[in-house]
This record gives sequence, C-alpha cells and structure tokens, in this order.
Amino acid sequence: MTRLSELGESHVLERILSHNRSGSQVIIGPGDDAAVTAVEGNLVSTADMLVENEDFTRSWLDWRRLGIKAAAQNLSDVCVMGAKPHGLLVSLAVPNSTEIEDLEALFAGIVAEANRAGDELGCEIPIIGGDLSSSGLIVIAITALGTVGDPGVTSAGNGGVITRAGARPGDSIYLAGTIGRAAAGLDLLFARADGEYGKDPDDLGADADLRELINTQLAPQPDYAAVAHLGTASAMIDVSDGLSTDLGRVAAASGVHADIDRASLQELIDPLLPAARHLAQKTVTAEELALSWVLNGGEDHGFLASSAQFGTPPVGWRRIGEMRPGHGVSLDGAPVPTSGFSHFGK
Amino acid sequence: MTRLSELGESHVLERILSHNRSGSQVIIGPGDDAAVTAVEGNLVSTADMLVENEDFTRSWLDWRRLGIKAAAQNLSDVCVMGAKPHGLLVSLAVPNSTEIEDLEALFAGIVAEANRAGDELGCEIPIIGGDLSSSGLIVIAITALGTVGDPGVTSAGNGGVITRAGARPGDSIYLAGTIGRAAAGLDLLFARADGEYGKDPDDLGADADLRELINTQLAPQPDYAAVAHLGTASAMIDVSDGLSTDLGRVAAASGVHADIDRASLQELIDPLLPAARHLAQKTVTAEELALSWVLNGGEDHGFLASSAQFGTPPVGWRRIGEMRPGHGVSLDGAPVPTSGFSHFGK
Repeated sequence: MTRLSELGESHVLERILSHNRSGSQVIIGPGDDAAVTAVEGNLVSTADMLVENEDFTRSWLDWRRLGIKAAAQNLSDVCVMGAKPHGLLVSLAVPNSTEIEDLEALFAGIVAEANRAGDELGCEIPIIGGDLSSSGLIVIAITALGTVGDPGVTSAGNGGVITRAGARPGDSIYLAGTIGRAAAGLDLLFARADGEYGKDPDDLGADADLRELINTQLAPQPDYAAVAHLGTASAMIDVSDGLSTDLGRVAAASGVHADIDRASLQELIDPLLPAARHLAQKTVTAEELALSWVLNGGEDHGFLASSAQFGTPPVGWRRIGEMRPGHGVSLDGAPVPTSGFSHFGK
Repeated sequence: MTRLSELGESHVLERILSHNRSGSQVIIGPGDDAAVTAVEGNLVSTADMLVENEDFTRSWLDWRRLGIKAAAQNLSDVCVMGAKPHGLLVSLAVPNSTEIEDLEALFAGIVAEANRAGDELGCEIPIIGGDLSSSGLIVIAITALGTVGDPGVTSAGNGGVITRAGARPGDSIYLAGTIGRAAAGLDLLFARADGEYGKDPDDLGADADLRELINTQLAPQPDYAAVAHLGTASAMIDVSDGLSTDLGRVAAASGVHADIDRASLQELIDPLLPAARHLAQKTVTAEELALSWVLNGGEDHGFLASSAQFGTPPVGWRRIGEMRPGHGVSLDGAPVPTSGFSHFGK
C-alpha cells in the first residue's frame, strides 16, 4: 500500500486515470487546462457533492462503492431530464495519507457505474476532467454532462427536455427502480455502529437481505434502462430525497396534486419488513417503519415519471398514483408532509 | 446575522441565487435535476476545487474574495483554450454555523467575477446549477463550461481549440497579466499570521503596495480581455502553478525547449522588491526572493501563449522568451527546475 504523499500529484493522476475509458466525443481529454468535447443537441449539466461525515462516515467507507454512489447520483440527474450522459468531471479532495489503491478503487467504481449507465443508455460516458486536492476530509464533487434533443431547439417542449413542471391532472404517476431500500440500509448501518454487524458490508454477519439494503445505501444502482424504455413523459424526477419530497417537487413545479395509491406501495414495503422488524422500537411498528422508509427515504435513485396512463406500464415501471387538480401530496387522499431532507436544519 | 441552520436549504438557495444573472443560452436554470443550455460549437469543461486549510485559512477568509478566486481560476482555464465561458456550476460545502450573509458575499464574488469575464469576452456567464452541502470544512468546487469553434469540427486545428501542445521552435513566448504577485501576497499572509499585519486585508497596517499583493492572492483578476486581443496562438496555458511549471508543461506537451529572457522579467520583479525586502531572510536576498516568486509562484492567473513573433505584442501581452528545439525550461540558457507545486508531497 502506497500513500499519495509518497507518489506526487502527476503519478497519482496517471494511476487513477488508467481506469478511464475514452469516448468518440472527446477532442481534448484530461491533462490540458480544460477538456473539449463534441456535443450534439442541448447541453445538460448537473453537479453533486459527497462529503465525509455528512453523506458517509469512515467506519462504513468502501472506496469502490463510494465511487459508484457518486457517479450514480449525478448520472441519474442527467438521465431524468430525458438526456444521454456525455462525460464526467471528477473533483476530489482526500487526505495526504490516503492510499493510492483506495483512490484507484474509487475511480474504478466511478468508471464501472459510468460504463453500466452507458451500456444501458447506448452512449459513452468518459471521465473528461476534474481536480485533485489534499484535504482533512474526503470530498467528491462530480459534474455530469449530457446532451438532449436537437441543437438550437430552445422552445417547443424545451428542446426534448423533460422537467418537473409538465405533469397534468389525470396523468398517472410511475416509479422505476426502488425506494426506501437505501434508507433502511442507512438505519442498519447506524445500528451496526453499535456493534450489531461486522465492519465489512460483505461480511455483515447479517442475512443476505439486510446486506442488500446496505448495498443500496452504499452503491445505489439506478435503473437507467427504464428511462430509455419509457420513451417520453410529462414530468420526471430522480428520487434522491424521498418519494414524498420529490413527488412534492413535481406537484409544486407542475401546479398539480399528487395522490399516491397506498396499495401499490405494498410490493416495495414487504421486502423491507425483515429489516424493519430488526430495528422497530416500541413506539413504531415494523409496518410503520417500512412505510416511512418508502415514503421519506431517498438515495435509491428510483425515478418518478408522470404520463397519460399506459395500458401496460413500460418495462421497469409500476403505476403508483395519479395527478389531480390542486397541490401537495397525499396517500390514498390523506395529506403527506413534503418537507424532506435539508442539509441545514429547519 | 442568520446562520444557515436557522434557514433551511431551500431558503438558503433562494438567498444566494438572488445574486445570479441569467443568460440567453439558459433553457432550464437552477432548480430542476439538471440545467439545460443551448451550446454553439464544441464544449469546453473544467473543474477546480478550493479547500479550507489547503488553499486558504479561516484567519484570512474573506468570503467575497474567495468567490472571486474560485470563479477566476475556473474561467481562466476555459479562456486559455481559446473558448468563451458559457456557465458555471457551483458546489459548496460549508459548516451549518455559516452565516447566510457570508454565503451571499461568496456568491456575489462569484457572480461579480463571472460578469467581469463576460464583459471582457463578450458573453454571458450565468450560474446554471450546483449543489449545497453542510461540512466540517469549507469546500468550493466550481465547474466552468465554455464553447469554442464550430459545432462538430473535431479535427483540423482541434475545432478552434488552443492546447498546450502546439508550440514550435522559433515561436516567441508571451505573457498576459502578472506572475509572482499572488505568491508574494501568500508569503505576506503567512508573515502576518505572526502578528505583523491587521486581520482585515483592507486594513493591513501595511502600505498599499503590500496590500495589493495580498489582494492578488485572495482575489486574482485575470486579464481575460488580453486573450481576446491575442486572436490566436500556437499554444496557451493559465499560469496557476508558476511560470517554470506551467511553461514546462507547454514545453513537454509541445516537444520544445522554452528559454525565458531574464531581462524581460525585470518589470515584473521590481514591483515585488518592497515586499521581498520586508520578508527576505539572511540566506536569500530581496532580488532572489522576488525572482523566485516570479519564476515559481502561481495563482495570479497570468496567461502564457506561444506564437510567431508579433511586430508589436497585442494589447496586454509582453514577450518573455522563445521556444527552441529540445526540452525543458531555461532562464537565459541556464536550466530551471519545472517541478512546481504538488498537492501530495514529492
């Protein structure tokens, strides 16, 4: 194991970029002042950070999974705009004492997730640039770029873009992927901090089902292909802060009310019941805890879409409710708070 | 003064984005999963981070200047590719206890620098997205996007792009802006930590010339307009790590040797002599210290370009040397080390 401080910046960059795959859109890749790439259509761009002690802790740190998570949360955001990812910029701050093998694992995770998304969506997603800095805390800031629609088309359906603002009363609400699993995994990780589980997520001493929930927290695997199967939608959002919050954002942006069909969530709740039984306290039943994960837990990076109702939902999607006139979110008609996660109190 | 923890994330975003100016290229701005913008030509992208205790310390922290610096270092990188900046993504991690007024000052600094660059280069540079997170350390990660050349032109002169790799023997070396001033300012700040100066950079108790050097460290002001005046060049680079290092990068990428004309640097050295006299130790003279700032100090964000010699240099540029066959960097023929700054030891 070799620490970064023994290698120097240029050797570190060489090692970590050895995992990268280039793309036919790349004119100038990493190594100059900036990258240059050929784009077709409008540009889609999004940036997200993962910060130590805020989004993960050293005690759960698995560098490869952290890379997967950092890439997934950014690629999801590009994907739900109806766009194809185009490339990633990866800025990284890590302590001097970090081992190069750990950093390589992080980049291998980023590249693996970018390749998975590229395979599902039929595009190439190279790392085209970034920055490397030393720091007391681990911080990963990724920018994901994408392209959508025809070049120069800036009106008429927003140039092929699907926003949060297009849902209409009467639309059905569809979900791809899962919700609640990462939140259950997070609670299991916190419980594990009390010594309940082993340190390595692959060697939890817990059963395989619980381990899979923790994996969803550490390395979410968005169902990018589902977005390709959907074709189009009136609105779309990545569920990063929880169903209630993110559906609330669509409702607010579109000026509609979103009613969730409680029965449609049962298939999502059932697989969480063993973990919920494991963690439920006297004040809350396992069923209530599992429902709260499904309603309020983000980070699986499921996708929500609204659309006129399909006879049969597209591959990967399930119908979970309906848009109506009004505002806010409800569950079988009963209002659901949409406050969600905030980084800063309140 | 109000702390972020009293406001909640959405109110914080509202306050800081109130400083933003939109642009005609923006189809979907901040607030959806990703931004969508209309681009003409090839895409230029670069990302840079500023990390507390690595790039600045609390004791010198001036939020507005930090915003200027963060924007300037990214905009410079776009500019030296021969490109026009298109937009910024700003990801920010700050402690919960940060005051909203400080964050507003940071964003006001970013916006002010983006507007200054836009005015000099004839383009609009809005903040189009980003992320906000709480953290134990202050981290600012900015991605700057730009456009260059005609869409789809991916060969023949790299589609209008100026890289580090095009310098030829016989080209003259030109510099725009300054070098060495930020490095002198940094040494003054470190000296100040011993109590020599007052805390506020505007109230240093030092004379105005020394204060200006510190200002260059805290809030560099790249001469973006000079790049517009240059027209084209065989190679270009932003001097972020020092003349010797960055000129060494051009020499290495282009397969040439770069010889600096010592006499041409005197105009850059002279203004640094008062600060150098202030700080020089027994082992180094003021002249030696000032020369080392000019050769090895980065962060003024001067621009280096190589080109066939001009009769009269374009506005903002001075000739400082010549490219020759060979490799490495020399000063009046004597080899200069190009090791430069590394974030990780060695």
